[in-house]
Amino acid sequence: RLGELLEPLHPADIADLLEQVDSGRRREILLLGKSFFDGEVLSELDESLREEVITFLPPEVLAEAVRELESDDVVDLLEDLEAPQQEAILDALEDTDRVAVEQALTYPDYSAGRLMQREVVRAPEHWTVGETIDHLRAHKKTLPDQFYHVIVVDPGIRPVGYVTLGKLLSSKRSVKLTRLFEDSFRTIPVTQPESEVAYAFNQYHLISAPVVDDGGRLVGVITIDDAMNVLDEEHEEDILRLAGVGEGSLNDRVVETTRQRFPWLFVNLLTAIVASLVIAQFEEAIAQVVALAVLMPIIASMGGNAGTQSLTVAVRALATKDLTGSNVWRVVRREVAVGLVNGAVFAVVMGLVGLVWFGSATLGWVIAAAMIINLGVAALAGILIPVTLDRFGIDPALASGTFVTTVTDVVGFFAFLGLASAVLL
Amino acid sequence: RLGELLEPLHPADIADLLEQVDSGRRREILLLGKSFFDGEVLSELDESLREEVITFLPPEVLAEAVRELESDDVVDLLEDLEAPQQEAILDALEDTDRVAVEQALTYPDYSAGRLMQREVVRAPEHWTVGETIDHLRAHKKTLPDQFYHVIVVDPGIRPVGYVTLGKLLSSKRSVKLTRLFEDSFRTIPVTQPESEVAYAFNQYHLISAPVVDDGGRLVGVITIDDAMNVLDEEHEEDILRLAGVGEGSLNDRVVETTRQRFPWLFVNLLTAIVASLVIAQFEEAIAQVVALAVLMPIIASMGGNAGTQSLTVAVRALATKDLTGSNVWRVVRREVAVGLVNGAVFAVVMGLVGLVWFGSATLGWVIAAAMIINLGVAALAGILIPVTLDRFGIDPALASGTFVTTVTDVVGFFAFLGLASAVLL
Ligand SMILES: [Mg+2]
Ligand SMILES: [Mg+2]
Ligand SMILES: [Mg+2]
Ligand SMILES: [Mg+2]
Ligand SMILES: [Mg+2]
Ligand SMILES: [Mg+2]
Ligand SMILES: [Mg+2]
Ligand SMILES: [Mg+2]
Ligand SMILES: [Mg+2]
Ligand SMILES: [Mg+2]
Ligand SMILES: [Mg+2]
Ligand SMILES: [Mg+2]
Ligand SMILES: [Mg+2]
Repeated sequence: RLGELLEPLHPADIADLLEQVDSGRRREILLLGKSFFDGEVLSELDESLREEVITFLPPEVLAEAVRELESDDVVDLLEDLEAPQQEAILDALEDTDRVAVEQALTYPDYSAGRLMQREVVRAPEHWTVGETIDHLRAHKKTLPDQFYHVIVVDPGIRPVGYVTLGKLLSSKRSVKLTRLFEDSFRTIPVTQPESEVAYAFNQYHLISAPVVDDGGRLVGVITIDDAMNVLDEEHEEDILRLAGVGEGSLNDRVVETTRQRFPWLFVNLLTAIVASLVIAQFEEAIAQVVALAVLMPIIASMGGNAGTQSLTVAVRALATKDLTGSNVWRVVRREVAVGLVNGAVFAVVMGLVGLVWFGSATLGWVIAAAMIINLGVAALAGILIPVTLDRFGIDPALASGTFVTTVTDVVGFFAFLGLASAVLL
Repeated sequence: RLGELLEPLHPADIADLLEQVDSGRRREILLLGKSFFDGEVLSELDESLREEVITFLPPEVLAEAVRELESDDVVDLLEDLEAPQQEAILDALEDTDRVAVEQALTYPDYSAGRLMQREVVRAPEHWTVGETIDHLRAHKKTLPDQFYHVIVVDPGIRPVGYVTLGKLLSSKRSVKLTRLFEDSFRTIPVTQPESEVAYAFNQYHLISAPVVDDGGRLVGVITIDDAMNVLDEEHEEDILRLAGVGEGSLNDRVVETTRQRFPWLFVNLLTAIVASLVIAQFEEAIAQVVALAVLMPIIASMGGNAGTQSLTVAVRALATKDLTGSNVWRVVRREVAVGLVNGAVFAVVMGLVGLVWFGSATLGWVIAAAMIINLGVAALAGILIPVTLDRFGIDPALASGTFVTTVTDVVGFFAFLGLASAVLL
């Protein structure tokens, strides 16, 4: 019955289903459902669960599952496994596949070399459409499942252009391949980081791109579906890092998740203590005017929010390469202007609140001035901190949030309490 | 000279360059560079700048630029323009294209119908590979620039399957198309939201998919490059909404950006005032023990951070459909457990800080208890608020952040100051 239910599902949906049940239930499904389980399901499965699932599977089911996969998917599967499991899977492969996969694993983590498939369709420069089609028909068995271009190479196996299958199909047999080259052609260095690969696919609307080694020789091809997946993972990384959430998934155990979240909370605690030390400098003022304690979180909160706005815009613009050295000062000026204008508006609002609530015009002026200062500083920090981190090669999504809110907390408390002490006491 | 510099650039890079200079410089480049400016550049250009650029361009340059584009790109260009500019562009199109584009504009905003191109390559069920190839050769002129499948339709023009160009090329002429169908085939309803379309492409590794109307008839095709673009925009929307930044781009003027950011800051102000009202209830306690004012932001800050962690994980998991009705309670239990464990660890740390800094064991106990309560509540709110918004059809990225930090601020201040009043006074 379970087999019947799972039968019509796409492997990606079966993998999602396995992800959403608990470990015991997952084992039950796997024991019952050998028939539906295949390499595709394994390769769709979240990385956090692959080891678990692999240990459940009988070796012959695993071997069978892996042999069906394209080389890029086998590499993706292997790279996160422990050595003994890696061995088990490598042993299941045929010798040539095994060599190809081992070769791919020599490229750096998260590089084009890990992402590419080694099954490529190539043709020499002198071929015609007819020769190419005859070649494809003759080698039908060994063609990759999906391919979108025939890559034309020189005698040194260096890609010089590519031809879409649509052009091949619609052109006369006598036409030379070199006359059908696409403008979109560009090669990808095998050591390029996968995030750059994903950017290039999205920016230049690539469908597939040849991967070349240092000598410019063709070593593989990356297809857009894999680039789209990387783009999605890069976004996940950015959004989770901005929130101070490390790697990890919904399937991790409580201990692991606790350990992943802890460091960020700890850093936040340290910065919160720094902000508290600022407050502690003004204990006397607070003891005399308790209204300060009531109002000070508002200044800090508004600064934190405005800073996060600027920061997030900056992190996103850095990721899309819309924020570069050539426009950074224009963006800084713009953000600070926005911060000051909003600061002025909220200064008026909060000045009135201070006046009405606590009946003190002076308190109103103090809170208004602190608001303008803090929103201006928030905008400045919100752009400059991620840009600086990026310059130093640190992921701006990773560490900016804490820095920015520390700045806005410290400046906010200091401006508000400091002005209050100077004016009210 | 400018022409020479721009000549080798991809239209997407020219568009980026135009985005990164100011309005005056942009005008200069456009006046000089008629030769490099084409429809591709216009279509790559950020939506916020298209109107400006279109008004700069001489009508004949615009008309020429638009005529080169595929129908989906014309629709994308038109949909955000004001009526007079829309008319100008529609007038530039040939009659059949104009009708096609006007038809596409009748579909809802952000639907598959807006995203699809109307140029499709289809074949009847009874055709063989040979007949299909002959047809493609005969209609070479009208084939779309890029296509990846031949869509096979029944006599009612309803798609029944598709064949990859790779299979067409490598199969014998006599083979029937119906024998070459791909498993990956699935159709997309013309009114499906584009975010769902992007999800389907990413989840099922689609390269292109036929779009059908209510009657199941083929009306267009969506290709993965456009789906990838939508995925990227959806991510941008999520990350910006989580930060309380409305639509908008780096190119908007200061007034516009100020207006976009204002509402979120205003909502934040209201919720900050609510938190202040909580603090105001305990003015007396603060006046007696100023240490409370020094320490209270730490509790609130830790709660806000932990809540944002859970919230971001939840928003991302909702977007990837990894958090569903079937595992929501498991995820809630897990997050609350993580919150309580981290809460307990930080309770010990802060308890000691309270004891050492202010020499009061009682203050240490109070801050420890408040920490555990607030991190537990943060986890609970961080999951339940976005899930609830999602149930009611509200984008969880849009409004969750403010709700969650309001809850953690209010609970944090109330727990800390309330316990302190009860115990210390
Ligand atoms: Mg999945
Ligand atoms: Mg994943
Ligand atoms: Mg990988
Ligand atoms: Mg991997
Ligand atoms: Mg692949
Ligand atoms: Mg990244
Ligand atoms: Mg860009
Ligand atoms: Mg661009
Ligand atoms: Mg659109
Ligand atoms: Mg548009
Ligand atoms: Mg398109
Ligand atoms: Mg969305
Ligand atoms: Mg999923």
